[in-house]
Parts: sequence; C-alpha cells; structure tokens
Amino acid sequence: MKRNLYLTTTPIDEAREIYMNALGDDLRPRAETIRVTDALGRVTSEAIYAKYSSPLYNSAAMDGIAVVSSRTEWASEASPVLLKPDEDYLAVDTGDPIRKPYDAVIMAEDLQEVPEGVLIHAPAPAWQHVRPIGEDIIAGEMILTRCHRIRPIDIGVLLSGGVTEIPVYAQPRVGIIPTGTEIVEPYENPKEGDIIESNSRMFEAMVRENGGLPVRYDIVPDDYEAIKASVLKALEENDVVLVNAGSSAGREDFTVHILREIGEVFIHGVAIKPGKPVILARACGKPVIGIPGYPVSAYLAVENFVYPVLRSLTGLRASQSTTIQAVLSRRLVSSLKHREYVRVRVGRVGGRYVCAPLARGAGAAMSMVRADGFCVIPQEKEGYEAGETVDVVLFRSAEEVDRTIVCTGSHDLLLDVISDLMSGEPEGVRLSSTHVGSLGGLMALQRGEAHISPTHLLDEETGIYNESYIRTLFPGQEMVLVKGVRRIQGLMVAKGNPLGIRGVEDLTRVRFVNRQRGAGTRVLLDYKLKQAGISPDDVDGYEAEAATHMAVAAQVASGEADCGMGVYSAAHAMGLDFLPVGDEEYDFAMRPETLDLPEVKCFLRLLGSDAFRAKLEELGGYSLEGSGEIR
Amino acid sequence: MKRNLYLTTTPIDEAREIYMNALGDDLRPRAETIRVTDALGRVTSEAIYAKYSSPLYNSAAMDGIAVVSSRTEWASEASPVLLKPDEDYLAVDTGDPIRKPYDAVIMAEDLQEVPEGVLIHAPAPAWQHVRPIGEDIIAGEMILTRCHRIRPIDIGVLLSGGVTEIPVYAQPRVGIIPTGTEIVEPYENPKEGDIIESNSRMFEAMVRENGGLPVRYDIVPDDYEAIKASVLKALEENDVVLVNAGSSAGREDFTVHILREIGEVFIHGVAIKPGKPVILARACGKPVIGIPGYPVSAYLAVENFVYPVLRSLTGLRASQSTTIQAVLSRRLVSSLKHREYVRVRVGRVGGRYVCAPLARGAGAAMSMVRADGFCVIPQEKEGYEAGETVDVVLFRSAEEVDRTIVCTGSHDLLLDVISDLMSGEPEGVRLSSTHVGSLGGLMALQRGEAHISPTHLLDEETGIYNESYIRTLFPGQEMVLVKGVRRIQGLMVAKGNPLGIRGVEDLTRVRFVNRQRGAGTRVLLDYKLKQAGISPDDVDGYEAEAATHMAVAAQVASGEADCGMGVYSAAHAMGLDFLPVGDEEYDFAMRPETLDLPEVKCFLRLLGSDAFRAKLEELGGYSLEGSGEIR
Repeated sequence: MKRNLYLTTTPIDEAREIYMNALGDDLRPRAETIRVTDALGRVTSEAIYAKYSSPLYNSAAMDGIAVVSSRTEWASEASPVLLKPDEDYLAVDTGDPIRKPYDAVIMAEDLQEVPEGVLIHAPAPAWQHVRPIGEDIIAGEMILTRCHRIRPIDIGVLLSGGVTEIPVYAQPRVGIIPTGTEIVEPYENPKEGDIIESNSRMFEAMVRENGGLPVRYDIVPDDYEAIKASVLKALEENDVVLVNAGSSAGREDFTVHILREIGEVFIHGVAIKPGKPVILARACGKPVIGIPGYPVSAYLAVENFVYPVLRSLTGLRASQSTTIQAVLSRRLVSSLKHREYVRVRVGRVGGRYVCAPLARGAGAAMSMVRADGFCVIPQEKEGYEAGETVDVVLFRSAEEVDRTIVCTGSHDLLLDVISDLMSGEPEGVRLSSTHVGSLGGLMALQRGEAHISPTHLLDEETGIYNESYIRTLFPGQEMVLVKGVRRIQGLMVAKGNPLGIRGVEDLTRVRFVNRQRGAGTRVLLDYKLKQAGISPDDVDGYEAEAATHMAVAAQVASGEADCGMGVYSAAHAMGLDFLPVGDEEYDFAMRPETLDLPEVKCFLRLLGSDAFRAKLEELGGYSLEGSGEIR
Repeated sequence: MKRNLYLTTTPIDEAREIYMNALGDDLRPRAETIRVTDALGRVTSEAIYAKYSSPLYNSAAMDGIAVVSSRTEWASEASPVLLKPDEDYLAVDTGDPIRKPYDAVIMAEDLQEVPEGVLIHAPAPAWQHVRPIGEDIIAGEMILTRCHRIRPIDIGVLLSGGVTEIPVYAQPRVGIIPTGTEIVEPYENPKEGDIIESNSRMFEAMVRENGGLPVRYDIVPDDYEAIKASVLKALEENDVVLVNAGSSAGREDFTVHILREIGEVFIHGVAIKPGKPVILARACGKPVIGIPGYPVSAYLAVENFVYPVLRSLTGLRASQSTTIQAVLSRRLVSSLKHREYVRVRVGRVGGRYVCAPLARGAGAAMSMVRADGFCVIPQEKEGYEAGETVDVVLFRSAEEVDRTIVCTGSHDLLLDVISDLMSGEPEGVRLSSTHVGSLGGLMALQRGEAHISPTHLLDEETGIYNESYIRTLFPGQEMVLVKGVRRIQGLMVAKGNPLGIRGVEDLTRVRFVNRQRGAGTRVLLDYKLKQAGISPDDVDGYEAEAATHMAVAAQVASGEADCGMGVYSAAHAMGLDFLPVGDEEYDFAMRPETLDLPEVKCFLRLLGSDAFRAKLEELGGYSLEGSGEIR
C-alpha cells in the first residue's frame, strides 16, 4: 500500500460547508414518540400543544372557606358577618374545586372561629383566591416549540397539560471503530510498542453529551479487508460512522482508500492544527468520518465535523461557548497554512483576563485537561505577540475563571496537593498553576499576569533565598513573601544507584538531564557545579531540558538519563534513589492586595491545614516550620 | 387534625444555614469505585494519579524513517546523504517506538526515494520528531483533583495514563413521595376535582440533573398513617426523602406532624415567594424535605433547599447562573415579608437588556416554561419602579438571549406558529412574545423595550388600521409597518350556540368575557357596541378581563362565560361556534433599523414561507394577501 502523501488542506469552514452540503438530505433526522417521563434532555421534533387546561376547573388558591361573595359584602372590622357551615360556606383546601354558587375563598388565617360557624371581618370580592380554569395552561395552547430540549419544568407542565407522550428526534446511533495493530484495550497491561486505545472512549462520551447513542466496535488491526468489513457492518447498524485512526498518509492508513472504494470522499485533509488528517466521506448514504489518532487532533476533528452532523440529526442547536478577551503572556507563532487551536490557561488578575499557552503538540492530551480554553489563531494570522489582547473560547464559565488563582512559577508537587484540597472546599475556588521556573514566575508577577509566584531562588552571595530577587525585580514596591516549605533537593538516580554516583562531582561521567533556564533547581545546580569547579560543558546532557521535577524523574526512571536534580518527593513518587544536595526555601511571592482575595485566603488557610501537613509527610522531603508566615 | 396555622417565615439564607448546620455530618458523601468508561458526568471523590506514562516509550511523532542523528549531520540541498534501509534507517509510522541507536525521525515528505534507499537533504537533529516518554502524561502525576466532574477528554487521558477505575461519589438516592387524595397519575383521564400529579416527575428530572438517583413512590392519599408508613419506607431505602405536598397549614397537611413524630423539624415556613410552606427536617439521620404543592413553589423549594443537600452528597459545586442587568418594563411591588422570585422574559433591544415580568402566581408553571430568568426582589425591598435597572438571573445563556426577538403587543396564535418555525431554523434564533394588547405593545416599542409590536388598532374615524396610532405615538419618526395578516374577529359561543346569540346586540342578555384594556379586540368591541348603541354598563362581564384569545375561548368552553370576542382560529382550536363580526388588519410595527437584525430577517422570511401559509390555513380565519410587505 502506498502512502497518501498528498493530503489537501481545505480551510476548515469551507471543508465543513462542502461536507454538510454534500450530505444534504442524508441528514434528515428521524422522530419517535416517547413518554414525557423519559424525555429529560430529549429534543421535540414538532410543537407540543396542551391537551387539558390547568387548573381543569375553578379551584381554591388558598386553604380556607369557599363563600358566595354577595353574602360577604357588608362585613367589616366594626360589624363582622357570621357565616354558618354548609349553609354559607364550605371548608376548602388549596386545589379544591369551587362550584356554584360559591365564587370566592377566604383564607383560614382571616377567620374567627365561633361555636355557630366563623366570623369574617372583610368582604370577599368575587374570584378572590380562586384560580379560574386554564389560569396556568389553556387546552390547545402551544406548550413547547419544535427543537426544544426538555428541561425538568417542561416535564411538569406537559403532564399538567395532559400530555403524556411527545414526539422527539431519535438519538442517532454513532458507530465508532478503533483501528491499529499497535493499539490495545485499556484493560490489558501495556508493553513497549503498545498504545492504549482511549480515543474511542472519549468519542463515546462526546457523542453521548451531544445527544447521540455511541456504539463502539472492537479494535481492528491495520488490515484493509478487516477494516472494510468493520466499516460496512457499522454502516448497516448506525446513522453515522467514525473511523479512528488511519486517516493520515502513513503506509498503513487504509481508511481513505476503503472509503473511496465503498463510497465517496469529499475532503481529505483540513487546514487545522492540530487535526489536519481528517476524512469527510459518505458511504451507503451515511456520513463516515475518518478521525486522526492524536488525542487533541481527534478532539478537534469531532468538535468541528462530527458535532455539526449530530446537530442536524438531533435537532440540538450549538451551545454558544463563552468568548472572552485576554492578554497573552507569551508570543505565539502560527503558520498561514492552517487555523491553529492553542490551549491556554486563563485567569483574572487585577481586573483583566490573562492567558498562558500550554503545550501545543497534538499528542498533549493532558494539556486539554489542564486548559481553560482555546486561543484560536485564524489561518490568515501568523500569530500574536506577548501582551496582545486575544479572543479565548472558554471551556468553563467566566465565573469559574474569575474564582481561579493564577499561580505561575516554580513547580513543586505540593501545588497539586493544594489544588486537590482546594477542589474539596465548598467555595468552588481553583488553583491554576503554570510551570515556568522561579524567575519566569516573578516576571509574570511583574507583568501582572499572576496572583502568586512560587519561587526558590538562591542568592549565591548571601545564601538567602528569594528576597534579593524580589527586591531587584520589584524596586521600591511593597511585596509579600509567604513562607512556604523547606524542601530537600538532590540527585535522582536509578534504584540501587548502579553507577555509584556520589554527588555533583560525578556528573562529568554520566548522562544528565537538566531543568529549563530560569528554574530555581538549575540555579542551584549551577551554584553546586561552580563550588565543585566543574564547567557545564563537561556535563553530558546539561542542555537537555525538562520542565518539572516529575519530568526529570521520569527521564531517569526510563533510563533515558542516569541522573537529574530535583526534589525528594518526585524521586520518591517514581521509586528512584535520592542523594540529598541541600535544603532550600520554596516560598510564594505576591502583591499585598492579593492577600485580600477570597481565593488566596482559602489558599493560605489550606497551607496551614492539617490535611496539607499530613499529605506532605506522605510525599516526604518537606519541612513545614513557619509555613504560611507572611513577610 | 388541626390546621398548622402558624408557619414561621425564616429568611431564606438563614433557613438554609440552620438546616445545613443541623444536618452536619449526616451529609457525608459515600464513595464508590467505577470503571472510567462509565464515568462521564460523575465526580471524583479523591485525586487521581497516572499509573503509566504516555507515551509509554520514546516514539515517532510523524510517519517517516527513524535515523541516527549523527549520521545525517552532513546532509544538505547541495550534497544529499544516502541512507540505506535497515542499515541506516527503519521505516516508522506515527506512534512506533524509537529504540537505540535511532534517535530522530525524518518525515516521509522530506525523503527522496532512490533504488538503494532514500536521499535526505537536511540533517536531523537528535530528538527531531520524537516524542519522549512521558511527554504527555508522567506516571505518578496528578491527572485530576477531587470533586472534578468527568468530561470526555478526562476519560481519554485517564485511560492513556493507565487508569481504568476511579473512585467517585456515589449518586445519592432521593425518595420522592407524592401525597394527596385529589391527585391522579398523568396516565388516567382526569375529571373535575382531580389534579394531575406532575411535580414528582419534575423532581425526578431535577434530581437526575443534579447528580442524584430519583426513586419515585406511589401516590399516597391524605392519611396520617399511610403517609407515615411511606416516609419510613423511603427513609430506609434512600439518602434523602422529599414529601410533596401537605407541607402547608391545611386541614389535611399531615407532613409536619409526622416528621415531628418520627424525627425533628428545624424549619416550617420560609420567607420566600412563591414557596413559603417548606419543611426542613431530619428523620432516621437523613434529610427529609416537605415541598409545597404549587409547581413554581415546588421548583423554588427544590432549587433552594434540595440542591444544597445534593451538592453536599455529590461533591458537585453550584453552577453559577449568569446574572445580567436589565431595564424593568413594569412596576413590581413586593412585600417585606419575603424574598420574591418574579419570572421575567428578557431580550436585548438597542444595546441594553430589557425584562418584562410574567404571571407571578405560584401555580403559573407555564410562566416558568416561558421565562428567560428570575428577577429576585430581596426581602428588604418593597419592589422596583418601571424603568429601573434590576438584576436578572438567567435560565439561558446571555448569547441565547441576544438572539431573541422581543415581540410585545397584541396576541395571535400565528405568533406561536412563527416561534415554532423559528426554532426549527438552524440559526438558533428565538421569538419571545409578551401579550399586553396592541396599545401596550406600541408603548413598549416607544420606550425601546421591544423589537416588534404586533398591532390591530382600528381608527374609528377613518376605518384604517394601525397607521394613525403609529403616527400619533411616534410623531416625526420614521417607522416601519410590516403587513401581517387579515383575520376574522367575531363572537365565540358554545358549540351549537345554545343561547341563540346573533351578534353584538345580544350581549346585554348573556354573561360576557372581555379582553384587557388596550387590546385591539377590546377597541373593536367598543366600536361595535357604540355602533349598536349599547352602553358597556349593560354588558354583564364587560369588566371580566382575559389576556389572550385562547383565554377568552377557554372561559366560554368551560361555561364560565356565554360569549367572548376573539379570532376565528382560537374558537376553532377550542371547538366553539363563531359569529364573524368583521375583518381586521394584524400588522407588525418596528423601527427601521430593526429590519437589519438577522433575527428579524429570519422572522420576515418565515412570514412569507410556504410552511407558515400552510399552518395558517390549518388554523383557519386568516388571509395572507400582501403579507410581509413593508410600509
């Protein structure tokens, strides 16, 4: 099988329009009649009219007595009127019918009970506290229009209006076929070369959230006939079929050839990043969409091409995402070849929204989990400069973003611990941390793009942490430094220390993995190398950069590197041996006014909590003396 | 059984606080472990950590060949380097492992195939197009915090990280007990005195939407022992129990006495309107909430008291509703005795939000269906003046409200028809119509509170409809009048016309039902009465007002009135006989700039559509000549 080297790159809106037009009448939704009690979240396929009025009859709106209004005309405080049971009134409860000659209700609270009956002190005008027939719903009136998604209140009103069954759009069945010889079910124990199949499970959930019924098929290996057979079967059993992956131009990317054989391919390749290798096709009169394998590409392909197809079949309208204007923290370069979706974290700092780009790779699914939204770079733009105001399409509500602490700076596992504890608090506040190293964090704080900067920068001359850096970066400004933790830094080596590394002095004879420029840990390494009289040029891997303690630990654990520097807790978590190099102070820098934010108050409260202390003891390598103190 | 005359009226926030504090540890959520593939929408009960890294190994990020970077160093356009298969490179597809000695990937597109192998024209630096182990997810890192509601992308990442099962909060079981001798299941044919039981079905849906598992019990008649037995059974089988209704102070309102016997009642009566008779109690260590019977009261009681209990048990956080500022179209008076929730329709007219109050009765469930939000009048406020800016808590997104046409004025069934057709259009636009009569509509247009005003006002002197009114109300301003329909007005009488009514001249001897002041139909009636020389004082029921044609028809159909004036379509829909009185012109007034709005373009397009014409023919009594013409 040849590679399909030449994907087209149709602009995304054009591709969608071509496809939706090509599908045309294939996208006619089916209707079915279901019970109202099963209808939550379903979508009406036609207008619904009330069968009965509600109330069905004139009825008491209050607990009390039903009276004939004309007989109460002369009642007053000065001369109350006596009404006798059965003769002059009937006791009624809310909802009871009011039949002639009765035409008004007096509330129980306004009655004075006497042996012969009740005394009233005011007249009851006709229709007082009586709900006329049809006051709420009139038989024959339209209760709901077509294309209306059923809410709880609709269920109540439909039943009150005598409607027990309604026509709704049938949920389209969406067949999902995972393909690939190298992919394995999540339930097995993966080995090198295996890729855990997770996309189809994400698609199931995406289809379900958008009103479809997902039908997942078994994994099909990269075999032309096997994939073709599975696609044909799925076409028979479903309204829409998704094939994942094999939509690109690899040697074993059969999908496009199969779809050309059994149907018609309208688009192969869309100018979108991530997500280019999309196939938009039709076979057996049904839409078939080939979806790329990288999770972020897959997500965007479903959102951009499968959702519109589902909307046509379900009657659901696009839910409008909230778009906000945010200041970009870092330059973003993009190509004119595609529209690019860059995942960003967003927060509101000092009255304006700021956004920080996350990992851009198509494979960085975790960055989708962390992201608060997308910054979409149009195809005709080459990118944005740092400090520019850009549009961000939010995944969360703006209110949620408003209650987020933006924490930018040095990485430590304790940030995850606080973030977890914070999520458990009833306030609904969040911690959003971006790891750019201590110096990068302080610079973000300076630019007004962060609430808090975790930092552990050693002043080589004084041996004091953090303070001198803050004084230099924020001259003449009052700043707050909240004491965090003392933590042990050291060298992480494989279990059992097979290379017999003793300390920094041995770094000249092993493969090292370093942290990025500006990271406090790198500053510490440089200091230690200088003390030991070693030049960075003599350290193999000094230029290899990892962004977090855990990333360093992972490199060592996998054998890619023999040694890296980082905190004890990361080495401990990855089962590595650890050679302590020294203690350091990991603190939180912020502006004084930040202390007043309720989110930050919650942060500080948790920093001093027993739950936090207990969790840090479990992680190991921390000392919490004076933690939470404000300097 | 005595009435419970003396409900307290605890302020709403205080009542909630007392109750939540009293429940305290009873509200500890349970956790359970479920499969990730079943976890959509569930909420994590603790932080989730990755089990494996992703990728699991260094892998190809592109389709192409794996090479040893050092052997490509000298390649250039001028002197390409030849690489031989197996010896110098391995063909790889995206995701394939890159094992030593290979350390870089060259994309298929950059290769020139020759008989002996491939030529490359540029060096491949180490790690080019290679995804290092853990690039996306690092084993041991936190993927999700606790209290996180699982989204599709989370499912993908959890599985990629080797996590197949997760701990989540168990869905609390909520027992729902409908009580009342007069209530019947929706599936039976109701007769006078029956009330269709619909609240429990609404509760089921509300509980489901908020992460609980509803368990509905059979209707229990108003019998102390029967209700007690049902409550005790429900307490045994559920985490929370809701009793509806019997929470008020009627003769047969047993709930509070039962709960005092078997448990503890903390609050009976809350200062909220609608919704005062709420019971907040505990029995068998579980929350029991007595909910009032009126649907709007019931809805508000669930929202204000059951949702907080559910949030404690599910780990879900309150979703923040959007609150906007809107100009109030009508004065709202409220009492200092309670916080009042007034349902309003909201639209954006000329750059500002305007809101119009809907029916305020606790029984007006249909107004909840029609509403776009609540205007909440705080307990310490006596109300708001027309024109004041108030806070509105929206039920819809602000974007949806922005795409709504505000149509205020005279009522006709054709507005429902257009609204239905509009909902079927892909644009997602909505028509929100409020019925205040023709004159009221033109005045709303004048105040900038409506986009469109449907009007049919007869100038008695000229016999011409609408134009002179607009000239008078909008002196010197350019206005647009879009021709709507000609429709037949007449007298609606019971089937077979048992009283032998012949025309307006007979209105002195029957019970009439009129339309509200300012309604065009009322203007027409007055004109016809004057022509016939009849004084309004001689018409029994001239002061009885109904707000729509359908409401008039319902009064006649129920026998409450013998005769009313309205359009043919309403009489037809309610199965009444109809005595035509005359044709009239029902048109749409608007400002010229309104014609440019996309929503209004959609409205006008539909006005001229075949679907609209067909539907109006079905309703009967309309002529569509010139419909959609702009004057």
